Amino acid sequence: MTLHTVHAIQDEYPDDFAWCFGCGRLNEDGYHFRTAWQGEQTVTLYKPSEKHIAIPGFVYGGLIASLIDCHGTGSAALALHRKNGHEPGSGEEPPRFVTASLNVNFLAPTPQGALLKAIGKIEEIHPKKWKVVVEVFADETLCATGEVVGVVMPAAFGKK
Amino acid sequence: MTLHTVHAIQDEYPDDFAWCFGCGRLNEDGYHFRTAWQGEQTVTLYKPSEKHIAIPGFVYGGLIASLIDCHGTGSAALALHRKNGHEPGSGEEPPRFVTASLNVNFLAPTPQGALLKAIGKIEEIHPKKWKVVVEVFADETLCATGEVVGVVMPAAFGKK
Repeated sequence: MTLHTVHAIQDEYPDDFAWCFGCGRLNEDGYHFRTAWQGEQTVTLYKPSEKHIAIPGFVYGGLIASLIDCHGTGSAALALHRKNGHEPGSGEEPPRFVTASLNVNFLAPTPQGALLKAIGKIEEIHPKKWKVVVEVFADETLCATGEVVGVVMPAAFGKK
Repeated sequence: MTLHTVHAIQDEYPDDFAWCFGCGRLNEDGYHFRTAWQGEQTVTLYKPSEKHIAIPGFVYGGLIASLIDCHGTGSAALALHRKNGHEPGSGEEPPRFVTASLNVNFLAPTPQGALLKAIGKIEEIHPKKWKVVVEVFADETLCATGEVVGVVMPAAFGKK
């Protein structure tokens, strides 16, 4: 597996919704998480920088929570997009989800320098509400598990 | 209430444990959350920057998760420190906690530009394991609730 994901859902969000600090391609200072299909599961690969630590040598838990959060909303968007007959790269605008709840269990210290891999399994619990169960590996070690419930972003959400 | 917290627990962590991207005073690029007593509860005040958004106008949920995470471990450290007879500013080195689990429920969109206030209620569930129930307000609006279970950092955690 390489670090490069070709067809990430975040590449397809309209510009107005591409500013997320976690996964927005237009947010220069953000993490730039990118989420794609891997068969029936989803994957986000990420290499934290040296500043993203909890204590020297170990990755900051808040970054892992952020990774799970954006991986969850991105996975939900991928799944609903597929249900609607579309795949990233097809040129159709995907749905955008917001997080209703986020749960994270930290199982092992996450070593700094490792490639993080979030894997998602997706379940539709309502046409506008999807659950994503996430495992986060550092190289081959399972370091955290999580669950995200995402809901389709209300149309009024982005109106200022 | 002012934005300045005088005696934050994070000011007291030894230098080796003051690099957290969320709450480390020595991490130049981090959020710099600072957590203090407010009577029997704890408080962390934070004003996100303009880059910490989910979509324009609204704060990034991963930042709120990070705030709850560090507020939780900081609150647990405050509580065990007090149980041990100490307060921030007394010159005693406080305990340092790591997160076992983090749960966040997002109740309302969090407007960018508001002052965030995390309030914690702490419960000892074991001498080395503490639970912190957190409410996050944006100005006066309750935007998220959360729960952190923190455990005293194992002595070997920081050894490289």
